[in-house]
Amino acid sequence: MKYISLSAMALVMAGMGFNFTEARAEHICSPSGDIVLNADVIDGVPMYSVTYKDKVVIKPSKLGIELSDCPDMMDGFKLVSSKISSFDETWEPVWGENREIRNHYNELLLKLDQPTNYRKMDIRFRVYDDGVGLRYEFPQDGALSYFVIKDEHTQFAMDGDHIAWWIAGDYDTQEYDYTESHLSEIRDKMAASICSNASQTQFSPTGVQTSLQMKTDDGLYINIHEAALVDYSCMHLNLDDKNFIFESWLTPDAQGNKGHLQTPCHSPWRTIMVSDDARDMLSSNLILNLNDPCKYEDTSWIKPVKYVGVWWEMIAGGKHWSYTYDLPSIKLDSLDYTNTKPHGKHPANNENVKKYIDFAAEHGFDQVLVEGWNIGWEDWFGHSKDYVFDFQTPYPDFDIDKLNEYAHSKGVRLMMHHETSGSIRNYERHMEKAYGLMNKYGYNSVKSGYVGNMIPRGEHHYGQWLNNHYLYAVTEAAKHHIMVNAHEAVRPTGLCRTYPNLICSESARGTEYESFAGNKPSHTTVLPFTRLQGGPMDYTPGIFEMDITKFNPDSKGHVNSTLVRQLALYVTMYSPLQMAADYPEHYERFMDAFQFIKDVAVDWDQSKYIEAEPGRYIVAARKAKGTDDWFVGCTASEDGHASELALDFLDKDKKYEAIIYADAEDAHYKTNPQAYKITKKRVTSKTKLKLKAAPGGGYAISIKPVG
Amino acid sequence: MKYISLSAMALVMAGMGFNFTEARAEHICSPSGDIVLNADVIDGVPMYSVTYKDKVVIKPSKLGIELSDCPDMMDGFKLVSSKISSFDETWEPVWGENREIRNHYNELLLKLDQPTNYRKMDIRFRVYDDGVGLRYEFPQDGALSYFVIKDEHTQFAMDGDHIAWWIAGDYDTQEYDYTESHLSEIRDKMAASICSNASQTQFSPTGVQTSLQMKTDDGLYINIHEAALVDYSCMHLNLDDKNFIFESWLTPDAQGNKGHLQTPCHSPWRTIMVSDDARDMLSSNLILNLNDPCKYEDTSWIKPVKYVGVWWEMIAGGKHWSYTYDLPSIKLDSLDYTNTKPHGKHPANNENVKKYIDFAAEHGFDQVLVEGWNIGWEDWFGHSKDYVFDFQTPYPDFDIDKLNEYAHSKGVRLMMHHETSGSIRNYERHMEKAYGLMNKYGYNSVKSGYVGNMIPRGEHHYGQWLNNHYLYAVTEAAKHHIMVNAHEAVRPTGLCRTYPNLICSESARGTEYESFAGNKPSHTTVLPFTRLQGGPMDYTPGIFEMDITKFNPDSKGHVNSTLVRQLALYVTMYSPLQMAADYPEHYERFMDAFQFIKDVAVDWDQSKYIEAEPGRYIVAARKAKGTDDWFVGCTASEDGHASELALDFLDKDKKYEAIIYADAEDAHYKTNPQAYKITKKRVTSKTKLKLKAAPGGGYAISIKPVG
Repeated sequence: MKYISLSAMALVMAGMGFNFTEARAEHICSPSGDIVLNADVIDGVPMYSVTYKDKVVIKPSKLGIELSDCPDMMDGFKLVSSKISSFDETWEPVWGENREIRNHYNELLLKLDQPTNYRKMDIRFRVYDDGVGLRYEFPQDGALSYFVIKDEHTQFAMDGDHIAWWIAGDYDTQEYDYTESHLSEIRDKMAASICSNASQTQFSPTGVQTSLQMKTDDGLYINIHEAALVDYSCMHLNLDDKNFIFESWLTPDAQGNKGHLQTPCHSPWRTIMVSDDARDMLSSNLILNLNDPCKYEDTSWIKPVKYVGVWWEMIAGGKHWSYTYDLPSIKLDSLDYTNTKPHGKHPANNENVKKYIDFAAEHGFDQVLVEGWNIGWEDWFGHSKDYVFDFQTPYPDFDIDKLNEYAHSKGVRLMMHHETSGSIRNYERHMEKAYGLMNKYGYNSVKSGYVGNMIPRGEHHYGQWLNNHYLYAVTEAAKHHIMVNAHEAVRPTGLCRTYPNLICSESARGTEYESFAGNKPSHTTVLPFTRLQGGPMDYTPGIFEMDITKFNPDSKGHVNSTLVRQLALYVTMYSPLQMAADYPEHYERFMDAFQFIKDVAVDWDQSKYIEAEPGRYIVAARKAKGTDDWFVGCTASEDGHASELALDFLDKDKKYEAIIYADAEDAHYKTNPQAYKITKKRVTSKTKLKLKAAPGGGYAISIKPVG
Repeated sequence: MKYISLSAMALVMAGMGFNFTEARAEHICSPSGDIVLNADVIDGVPMYSVTYKDKVVIKPSKLGIELSDCPDMMDGFKLVSSKISSFDETWEPVWGENREIRNHYNELLLKLDQPTNYRKMDIRFRVYDDGVGLRYEFPQDGALSYFVIKDEHTQFAMDGDHIAWWIAGDYDTQEYDYTESHLSEIRDKMAASICSNASQTQFSPTGVQTSLQMKTDDGLYINIHEAALVDYSCMHLNLDDKNFIFESWLTPDAQGNKGHLQTPCHSPWRTIMVSDDARDMLSSNLILNLNDPCKYEDTSWIKPVKYVGVWWEMIAGGKHWSYTYDLPSIKLDSLDYTNTKPHGKHPANNENVKKYIDFAAEHGFDQVLVEGWNIGWEDWFGHSKDYVFDFQTPYPDFDIDKLNEYAHSKGVRLMMHHETSGSIRNYERHMEKAYGLMNKYGYNSVKSGYVGNMIPRGEHHYGQWLNNHYLYAVTEAAKHHIMVNAHEAVRPTGLCRTYPNLICSESARGTEYESFAGNKPSHTTVLPFTRLQGGPMDYTPGIFEMDITKFNPDSKGHVNSTLVRQLALYVTMYSPLQMAADYPEHYERFMDAFQFIKDVAVDWDQSKYIEAEPGRYIVAARKAKGTDDWFVGCTASEDGHASELALDFLDKDKKYEAIIYADAEDAHYKTNPQAYKITKKRVTSKTKLKLKAAPGGGYAISIKPVG
């Protein structure tokens, strides 16, 4: 362990009027020594603070839990003992950005007593070179066996009016566009930051979601999130915007409580990532490292997936998941489509699905997603309907047997779709049979959805009840060797390390919004700093026809991206599950560009973030798993971006051919998004490429060894 | 249809200031003509009234539904059309009090429009000779597809300050002793009527439960209940005790709403039974008739059950469901009993269960219930614990394989026990495996339990969510050919006609309370008028040792019944599932009396109620199915009861031997409960028996043909 500099820390403490002293406070530093964590019990209240290279990251901040059913765990504590330890191991994820991940930290465990209530509580800190994790632990040997959380009061006291990239705190949706503002501006900008959603519940004019990315005036990047959210309620942050103190704000249950716990247990990790280099935010493995190792012995059935699907036709194209207009209100028990008139806008039909299968087979995609294959979509949404789907019965024009047979004959699988409409009991009641059906027909992945208000009524998308369900869906799926891609579920917190069949999630504003109301051009320069911290996102990139009015006159949609940036997203938005979301016929108009999507990998040996600034640009390079092929992507905001890209990550002994997909000079996400140029070039590790991303544009490069 | 006398009705209407007139009001009468129902829309409000032999049963009463999410269905209605029809059929229940049941009624269907809201609502009345059923129907062709009920406002306006046998309205328990009082006294007697329960939620100082039995000053018996409670919230009655108007009061969900409905749908039937002879209350099949016919094609696997079990040892005997004191708080995931010390008070062990199997085999019982067989009981209760049981894993001292094998070798089955602790999601998640385990080991019946507050938290025992669950448990069980005996579930409403594997329920204060705090001696003279209207109860009679302190010094329990009355209950408390609840060794002390329990049938060709007065006495005679054997039972209140019992129900051409089990002269439920005499006597249909029930006593007779 390196020498610990506590001078800056002590200064801060003194300034705050806290009695942290070197003599009394417990402290540890990160392996590099750059991050210092100080912790103590002051006047009975557990407190901590964090510095990075002597700069304040977290000012002295209180820790504690308020309980509903017994005295709080907020004060009256005394420090019984502390224990410092170190850990260093390298592990291999089943899939990921890198073949190996180093998990290296110093740990401080504070053991606390609350004598008045004969209770114990521990606080565990792990300090990495890229940040800090802390969690509450509740041993069984105290007087506490069962307790109900009223709220958790973990403070994150900021040292200034930082810039933040935030979305509104909400118990039911994460699908907001990011707002970039100073902390002091959050209150004023809150109303404008909120758009309508099928289910939404805000709680505070200064409440925001995690992962929250910030930047300080003196150039520190700070990110607050959580890791390993299991059997606990999801954390938001509520800001005291006078003092710039964030405090945890958990998602309540139907009775307003925020968690039912039984000792021994612990909270999820509260994470604080910090660096003076934005790229470190993106390359951090802090969240994964704070999760438990993989719980499955056999993971051979878990495979990254590149897919196309019957989806954009409904989202952007004016087609429907439903089959008929004749049944505005249906009951599955007595449902019969025999005498209904098909409305003719149901793309999940045999002919169309075959077209997608053919396209997937021709271009090397693994799977074809088909939404709207199963009966019940005529009134699937917004009615708090309990028995909304059976996840079993195909529409009359979807021959599940024949279509799977056809797909398999071409080396392609269909991807299952389970929309739950938030009716959780109904899904769990049908889950075993639904997964069984998938096994029967050879599906190995499911896209699940949780649109609308939850049933049990009064529960929220991110409460303990639902978090428990999402994980149940994943672990039950594992028994069937099924991978899960959950939409509208809770934002990920690195659980994919432990349960790698949680192959992907949505949990943010994805490409679909380009057809609804558009995403800001900067959106994909923020997501990797925020939403992707917890795990991959099914962003569904690859839209080539930006002007949706061209194929759907009823739409006003426009995709706020150049075509080339759509390619780059396969690299910048890391995911082991990647869709090419546009129509086959749109791709067929741009087959030279489409080649990049065909080529790009979905699993990696190595990833490098070359350039990064939240809200501005991200340039990433990744080496495809088990090959010497590299792929580079750049996504830029409205401002565009100019790179002088050193290819020094390439093998020094190898020669390569690069195919560069670049925005044309006059490209622009709004006015001229489809203008691109493709060039081939021999490159080596010494090559430097001058590249330019248009406003809302980017670039993409595939680099393969030659000779 | 007989001539309808409307004179009394018209009089009442006029007196109430309502404009019911013969010219405008719709009316029908029962097949006999004794009951007349009048219905109309007055100033936009649907109303009805009922008379019996020209006496007022229900004064003009309003009908309507208040909605949470759209305009109410309380007024603004106009009568579009009405339709009168008749129905008469005889059907055979799978099991029951009678081999055949006649379903004979006249029906009035009012079709209503609510023009302001472009909605339709129908009200259907069925008038039987023993009462009236009415329900709301919501057709799909109105403007209403989905709606949320704020409350139902069905009024039952009484014509006086009747005597009622009532228990406090409560969303979570039915386990109260009955109070006999005038309606005007309910408010004052409410507090005293409530005892503590593991889960209880009262709602009003004049709120009571159904089935509510009343008696008027002029000798009418009136009973209000509901039939066919499916996908709806359970109804209570709230009394306007100034005007003696009851109004329906549904059980709310976690958000305070009282039902989510989708058209086409209907409410359960609201039932009003009426007669001037109390015996008609007991012999009525109104509730069953208002339920749908059996939904199962094959019912051959549904068999009445007489059983003993490992249960009274825990309830009364100070033994435990749990295995050890070493684990005050356990987690099933990591539970290991290997190194725990058994507390030695766990009767669900191999040796003891074998004893019960031997006893069952020797005395002709079908099954042996074993509670506490499965792990998790150490902290099963009161902690709002989600994963409380797995319904799969036996305690170390319960060899599920060997014990079933042993039982089957003796022609006996074990009876499964599934305590859920109210953790419904957990039960449903394990249900398929739990039923599968039962199939594997040859169990064909399960006693399920719902002790404590519900999870999903905020839901109540009698809300729509739980009612949906109880029925799900029954229909899922049917797929496994399993019979369900649900404890703490919603009070039955005749669903056993439709789903006859719902073989029994508890849903009232059973024998267990004799060990807790005692039941009133009159309790079993009330239950058949109230709780049993909806279906059979697992009352668990057959206690021979009334003084519980004799075998459990820690108890102060005393069974408020003579031993002979315990025999009579097998006849007076009709059920196809009957337990002999006491210890084998207690029975062995009274084998001559025990013979009645061995002999008594659990399924019947014919039932007759010879004498009855709620709160006083009930004398019932039943002919065992497929035989010429009759069994008679009498249960009496503290006042005792003297009968001159005419055996005119016997076959005139047969001679019989009667074994009469009577209280001894000096018997008394409190001071001398075990004093009895058994006499044998030749009898015929002309025999009259003079019989006397002691205070809290009764008598029991078995009558078999001879010669």
